[in-house]
Amino acid sequence: MTYRAPVSDMLFALRHVAGLDAVLGDDLTPDDARTILEEAARVADGVIAPLNRIGDRHGTPFADGAVTTPPGWKEAYRTWIEGGWNGLSADPEHGGQGLPLLLNAACTEMWNGASIAFGLCPLLTAGGIEALAQHGSDDLKTRYLGKLVSGEWTATMNLTEPQAGSDLALLRSRAEPMGDGRYRIVGAKIYITYGEHDLSDNIVHLVLARLKDAPAGTRGISLFLVPKVLPDGSRNDLRCSGLEHKLGIHGSPTCSMAFGDAGGAIGWLIGEENRGLACMFTMMNSARLNVGLQGVGIAERATQAALAYARERRQGKAPGAQATSAIVEHADVQRMLLAMKSYTAASRGICYLTAAALDAAHGPEGQAAHDRASLLTPVAKAFSTDIANEVTSLGVQVHGGMGFVEETGAAQHMRDARILGIYEGTNGIQAIDLVTRKLPLRDGATVRAQIASQRRVAEGLLKDADPAYGQMGARLRAGIEALDRATSFQLRALTSNRPEAALAGASPYLRLFGLVQGAACLAQAARAARAALQAGDTDPAHAARIALARFFAENELTAAAGLADSVMDGGAFTETAALALAG
Amino acid sequence: MTYRAPVSDMLFALRHVAGLDAVLGDDLTPDDARTILEEAARVADGVIAPLNRIGDRHGTPFADGAVTTPPGWKEAYRTWIEGGWNGLSADPEHGGQGLPLLLNAACTEMWNGASIAFGLCPLLTAGGIEALAQHGSDDLKTRYLGKLVSGEWTATMNLTEPQAGSDLALLRSRAEPMGDGRYRIVGAKIYITYGEHDLSDNIVHLVLARLKDAPAGTRGISLFLVPKVLPDGSRNDLRCSGLEHKLGIHGSPTCSMAFGDAGGAIGWLIGEENRGLACMFTMMNSARLNVGLQGVGIAERATQAALAYARERRQGKAPGAQATSAIVEHADVQRMLLAMKSYTAASRGICYLTAAALDAAHGPEGQAAHDRASLLTPVAKAFSTDIANEVTSLGVQVHGGMGFVEETGAAQHMRDARILGIYEGTNGIQAIDLVTRKLPLRDGATVRAQIASQRRVAEGLLKDADPAYGQMGARLRAGIEALDRATSFQLRALTSNRPEAALAGASPYLRLFGLVQGAACLAQAARAARAALQAGDTDPAHAARIALARFFAENELTAAAGLADSVMDGGAFTETAALALAG
Repeated sequence: MTYRAPVSDMLFALRHVAGLDAVLGDDLTPDDARTILEEAARVADGVIAPLNRIGDRHGTPFADGAVTTPPGWKEAYRTWIEGGWNGLSADPEHGGQGLPLLLNAACTEMWNGASIAFGLCPLLTAGGIEALAQHGSDDLKTRYLGKLVSGEWTATMNLTEPQAGSDLALLRSRAEPMGDGRYRIVGAKIYITYGEHDLSDNIVHLVLARLKDAPAGTRGISLFLVPKVLPDGSRNDLRCSGLEHKLGIHGSPTCSMAFGDAGGAIGWLIGEENRGLACMFTMMNSARLNVGLQGVGIAERATQAALAYARERRQGKAPGAQATSAIVEHADVQRMLLAMKSYTAASRGICYLTAAALDAAHGPEGQAAHDRASLLTPVAKAFSTDIANEVTSLGVQVHGGMGFVEETGAAQHMRDARILGIYEGTNGIQAIDLVTRKLPLRDGATVRAQIASQRRVAEGLLKDADPAYGQMGARLRAGIEALDRATSFQLRALTSNRPEAALAGASPYLRLFGLVQGAACLAQAARAARAALQAGDTDPAHAARIALARFFAENELTAAAGLADSVMDGGAFTETAALALAG
Repeated sequence: MTYRAPVSDMLFALRHVAGLDAVLGDDLTPDDARTILEEAARVADGVIAPLNRIGDRHGTPFADGAVTTPPGWKEAYRTWIEGGWNGLSADPEHGGQGLPLLLNAACTEMWNGASIAFGLCPLLTAGGIEALAQHGSDDLKTRYLGKLVSGEWTATMNLTEPQAGSDLALLRSRAEPMGDGRYRIVGAKIYITYGEHDLSDNIVHLVLARLKDAPAGTRGISLFLVPKVLPDGSRNDLRCSGLEHKLGIHGSPTCSMAFGDAGGAIGWLIGEENRGLACMFTMMNSARLNVGLQGVGIAERATQAALAYARERRQGKAPGAQATSAIVEHADVQRMLLAMKSYTAASRGICYLTAAALDAAHGPEGQAAHDRASLLTPVAKAFSTDIANEVTSLGVQVHGGMGFVEETGAAQHMRDARILGIYEGTNGIQAIDLVTRKLPLRDGATVRAQIASQRRVAEGLLKDADPAYGQMGARLRAGIEALDRATSFQLRALTSNRPEAALAGASPYLRLFGLVQGAACLAQAARAARAALQAGDTDPAHAARIALARFFAENELTAAAGLADSVMDGGAFTETAALALAG
């Protein structure tokens, strides 16, 4: 077995943590949702997952400007788009199925649990669809949206240049109007995922570039649609100039792109001139959430593999055992497996909550839900991908020596996961975004409301007073208090104009937020499981959910107070860092 | 620059944390020690370090039973043994230089900072020397020790079999006496580091095997010396049957070995029959310490690379900056770099303390020092290698997208480091060893004495009351109290026959121990630095040491209380793990 989408756990989290039933409205029942998830799981498990190893081994050979995807990739992509999965939550007006983002989030987790390298291609296309749908002219939409929604064509994001990674103000690619509504684009881009490939006849590149005389910095950047194949069927003046040799995701080509070698690639403006960054920002919430979901997916995959290995591998005797035990019987291995499983479930909860907030932003809750999504997005992205690194590394550890040998696949999970904390805004950038842009939303009311929602979960636990919870209620309450203290500190630092104090604690603050929010999600699932048990539901998964939430509260959430201490009392290092790092 | 051995920092830690001056005795001055370290650094930096990347790229091709080391490997090994480095702390009686293990520990850190894949070969040889010196017959010693000490021949450890990894009781390799003092060995071994190579004319395999009618389990295992080339110059009946395709350390061959395909490899018993495991245990302290030093070395290397990159790479503006800043100016990047540097220095302190205790075990302190070394060894091994994973992963993160591209080398550090927590006893095994075998030493008096030594450092900090310390004194005191509480809990669990409670918290307990001991080491260095400053020494490294220790105490040691909570209140999971992991 390589990966099996955990449909029941996903559906439970969708319904009882993220509130799927409310999002579905009158059109769909939870049973319909299950049917959709089960169908998606058949594709993820049966079609995509078997390609993951093949992609790692074969990579994407590059010759004469062309990139060949690994064996089986084209057929799988064809099957996948024919299932309509690419447009699951896209607007029906453009050929999408208009389903909630929340359902699509669960599917995105599946595609990427099956193979991050495969899942990346549609992830980029989704970003292109969103940018075009929100900011493109009617003419561009007519020409491109339908084929992007169907998946017949794919999209890319061309942001990074060698000198401009996290800092887009530094980018140098140029654009010049041709006088007929078209632009000539010249520049070199790097790290372009699926910048060239053989899965589709056309590739729609979204390219950030500067117009002549544009203001310096990020206020002078415009966004252009630059297709590989022009509407008249001729090749545009752009090419893949090389591929990166990477630590992981070998199945997905990471391209250097050259635009305008022969005078200029032809492109069309998306949105207004010099407003390209704003166009990028509107799609950032869902793109970042999707990367978080990649983290959840690979963490789930690594957990399944480790668990399967731990049940088979026999070494040593657990206390009281007469014969050699499966290593899953050893407390130390159980701790690793439970950490893997609980962090995965916690980050799943956070990601689904974020998706639900994005859905709710289109409903009566409107702006408040949008702000909630904005607050949760950097946590969903960074916490899920940080834990993806930790969970996949634990997966190697559970495998022992076999984990270091590429044969088992555990090492590939770790290699593949490592990019997630870096791309689509490094996790450090996410932490800065959370603290400096998201905490101040509505003068702190957005974050206060989120903390209040966590408190309600803790109060529920304490009210239930179920012995099976152990110390979950007390730990969650203490964790929330720690988050509350650290939040007040950060807001004070910002309002009293001490950004360096806020920035110094940004990363531990994000970790603290993720830990507490994740524990709240697990606790909410535990409460729902308890209610189901009391209602006579005998599914053993319910007791498992309670035990998992308890493990997380008693063994991982214990870090909360220390993280708050680091946020509030650790920032002096900014004054002495130059000294401490010298030499 | 790829790696530069940090001689001054090493010497400072050797002297002021580990007490080098006392270990040197009357024969050597600290200036002599510096001269030795500087000479070692020339070899590490200039000869070995440049090979690290080459080893990763070329690997060790295997054909017709022969393994070819990467280009330049042979010449570097020759230079290295001709410098006498292999026998630095070996007994002069066998051609060694008889220097303290503590000095050799610093050199071991250097060889492995330069290249783990290269450093592994002598690391294995050192184990062979120790086993042979302590348990070998005079005849075997005469025949093999001289050439092993000089490095002309290398040694291997043949423990693991496919079904017997952490659990040696399960091993099946067989040995049969030939009646003339020799034995015939038959069996298959896996994961044999440098089991075959072209660096030396002969390879001395130490092989664990079972005699016929030996007791079951670990009390029926014997240790044999099985040379590749027999004393008469003929090839022994053993061969390398394959190489592993590994995540990292590509420059070092990891071999499957077949003994006795043609009837039996000829070997000689080391120690007594059925006492092979005891022979292995006597060398385990230094072998495990050496793996810990590999962790320190690779962490140092990754830190240097990240720091160099962060000083060059310019992105964004730090608060108050007018122009684009080097990323080392950003608080978030400073936090990562300081974490890397402080964890590296903390684990260095722990490893050096352990080496000093091994040296002291041969002096007047005797058994108490031996027990201290035994206590510290699992911490030195596991903490240093856990943080090696974390530090090398942070190294990738500091490099951003460039970190995920193999070109920069940051990814190689992470891949290479990943084995350290697995081999020579997984870190889970180390935690179990610490809790179940080491805490009970002298009824807990050994660990209590160690905690008392940490308290003296904290009291010193509080007495100094230097504002530059920030909250270091209070944090260290609180950390020590957390360790004290968790230690009492573990000792009570063991004496009240609740091994499952002790085992459940073993890993967080080890982490807590390492964190507190590491902070104490950094604090001790800070106090010595302060004293130097007060004595008029104007080296800016002293203020840097104080700032680094403060960062660690205020930002990393904050995790101590939460870890103690997990140890003491987190163990209920062993009762529900089967349930929580089901499905």
